[in-house]
Amino acid sequence: MFLWAIVLVPILAGAQPPRGPLVVSPQVNADKTITFRYLAPQAKTVELSAQFEKAPVAMTKDAQGVWSVTVGPVKPDIYPYSFRVNGITVMDPANVAFFPNERFKASLVDVPGDTPLIHAMRDVPHGSINYEYYPSMEGTTGSLVVYTPPGYDTNPKQKYPVYYLISGTTDTEETFFKVGKTNLILDNLIAEGKAKPMIIVMPYGNIAARVAEQKGGAKPADPTGRDNPDAVKRANDFATDLVSNVIPYIEKSYRTIPNRDNRAIGGFSRGGGQTLRTAFSHMDKFAWVCAYSSYLSPEEMERSYPSIVGNPANTNKQLKLLWVSVGSDDFLYKGTVEFMDYLKAKQVNYKSLITDGGHTWMNVKTYVAATTPLLFQSQTPRP
Amino acid sequence: MFLWAIVLVPILAGAQPPRGPLVVSPQVNADKTITFRYLAPQAKTVELSAQFEKAPVAMTKDAQGVWSVTVGPVKPDIYPYSFRVNGITVMDPANVAFFPNERFKASLVDVPGDTPLIHAMRDVPHGSINYEYYPSMEGTTGSLVVYTPPGYDTNPKQKYPVYYLISGTTDTEETFFKVGKTNLILDNLIAEGKAKPMIIVMPYGNIAARVAEQKGGAKPADPTGRDNPDAVKRANDFATDLVSNVIPYIEKSYRTIPNRDNRAIGGFSRGGGQTLRTAFSHMDKFAWVCAYSSYLSPEEMERSYPSIVGNPANTNKQLKLLWVSVGSDDFLYKGTVEFMDYLKAKQVNYKSLITDGGHTWMNVKTYVAATTPLLFQSQTPRP
Repeated sequence: MFLWAIVLVPILAGAQPPRGPLVVSPQVNADKTITFRYLAPQAKTVELSAQFEKAPVAMTKDAQGVWSVTVGPVKPDIYPYSFRVNGITVMDPANVAFFPNERFKASLVDVPGDTPLIHAMRDVPHGSINYEYYPSMEGTTGSLVVYTPPGYDTNPKQKYPVYYLISGTTDTEETFFKVGKTNLILDNLIAEGKAKPMIIVMPYGNIAARVAEQKGGAKPADPTGRDNPDAVKRANDFATDLVSNVIPYIEKSYRTIPNRDNRAIGGFSRGGGQTLRTAFSHMDKFAWVCAYSSYLSPEEMERSYPSIVGNPANTNKQLKLLWVSVGSDDFLYKGTVEFMDYLKAKQVNYKSLITDGGHTWMNVKTYVAATTPLLFQSQTPRP
Repeated sequence: MFLWAIVLVPILAGAQPPRGPLVVSPQVNADKTITFRYLAPQAKTVELSAQFEKAPVAMTKDAQGVWSVTVGPVKPDIYPYSFRVNGITVMDPANVAFFPNERFKASLVDVPGDTPLIHAMRDVPHGSINYEYYPSMEGTTGSLVVYTPPGYDTNPKQKYPVYYLISGTTDTEETFFKVGKTNLILDNLIAEGKAKPMIIVMPYGNIAARVAEQKGGAKPADPTGRDNPDAVKRANDFATDLVSNVIPYIEKSYRTIPNRDNRAIGGFSRGGGQTLRTAFSHMDKFAWVCAYSSYLSPEEMERSYPSIVGNPANTNKQLKLLWVSVGSDDFLYKGTVEFMDYLKAKQVNYKSLITDGGHTWMNVKTYVAATTPLLFQSQTPRP
């Protein structure tokens, strides 16, 4: 029996609750410091592990058994963090905001800017986030998270372009919503007149895992190399599912403009690789392509997509946008810059952005905010 | 910097990953036993805490540092669970399915039935789950999760009745979706012709917490008694927000039938109390009322809702359904049965269901499946 079934009693019955002090965590202070708290009277050590800190930060215990630390000031953004309790990683139990992921658990803290950041909840018209099921490969049911822009429900004759946006390894179809705040970024950009109203479709990237789970098998390990047969099959399966299952489902269920000029594809990390492979193998489907913190190797480009680099004039005519961005501290920085240099040498046009920071969802938000204003614009500036 | 930023390198670059063995957890076996696993080479003790077990179950460590235990067979259902690692509660890092809650963190395990249960993902038409923002009290922005039934998008002239469904203390607006599987239950009941297609609106129950958070203040503690002024104010605030803000937003944004005969209200635990208070103080708004594992005291009924029990003939005419259900092991069992007896003595008609089990979301699913077929039916059987 779980504790909460027991501790609810006195609250509903009128007595004092025995569940200990109310723990408020995280508490973002006016000076942009953050106070984190964790109730664990018996713990020997508690540390804060946060993406704005280079190393874990020790927390101290008060007389009630609440561990706390105040850090910062912290640059305004949304950061993943967790606690290390006696060396074990735990989410913040007092915080509802979480990072959907298959292999770790983390909470999220939002440090607001003095003027609201592009991902902030502002007083503007809001679109809607929709969880959808669609018929996927091998008889399985796939999950999608779909953003529809403000006005979608009240303008029943308007049709919209669609951006297919794919998260990274061990992320889920919820990560661009819950961590990337893609819906709020678009609400704000659309309100400012900077982005066109669009539908954004966020699929789950690990088809092999879903098939195994729904067929009752054990979830397979991730491929250990990007070029081994299993990895290639998985990349192909993702592209096939997106083109043969996801796009038809979306175009049947939503009011879309179903042509390549009104379809974009983008993704982060593994999702960026899936983006490039899907786009380059289905040039009839997508005219706008965004790789966030990801790349393909020159060897794979030569082997798998010879027509892309062999006829750059045609590629440049077909692709209204090829975007590649990466952080200067990203562990994929070197490969991504080599990819940019390779495209340049092959005279394939692309736009690039190199930011500070690493392989993080802080950077993903920056890239989403930088690229969505370019999509579906008739006059996109070329490099 | 978080570990996952480092450990992704070799996977993308082609080497063997150093992140240790792939941990599959939970693994539901064909005989309905469940194997749980947790990687923690340094931990001293790891236990499983699950709602199908009366007490924590010890797990044992293998040579790779993976702790595991196989339990059951377990009765098919969806259960919350967590691990206790050196006495500290942690979610299962290998499991994406989680329990949205403000004060604890738990994972979910789904044991399928030999024939698919009413909450199972079946091959039937699926409705959609929509996350919405609405203008709430004191200038804040509220969150809603909204279910639209299959066919909502393809039958643009059809209008639907609406069920307002409220979760419990420390739950969030996501809990009826993520834990209660309300969308799948309705998909299945509608496919079987047992429930009418309806919209279900799931609000967040703790208005005071949201106002404090959005105004930059600390989240207030829950009221320590149901009759103190703060508790009464909060109950009134919830009813006011629902009637003055949520309902108008929904009726503007969705194709609803905006009258009392086509509005239902229901809820679990604190949400059940909010349901009864809101319904009894706004009899012009709701004709269908469902309290799951909750009740009002005779004293509160006499003091606050004298017309409900003072004129039972009118109440019985107005309310097409008044439902009260509870589990026989629920800590609120006694109060709920007293409430039933009180209604009976006052000649207020109600339907009741007493199940096995406690104050759990296993029971909530049962109650949702039992009540939604009764809603909005012109000929509802009376007790």
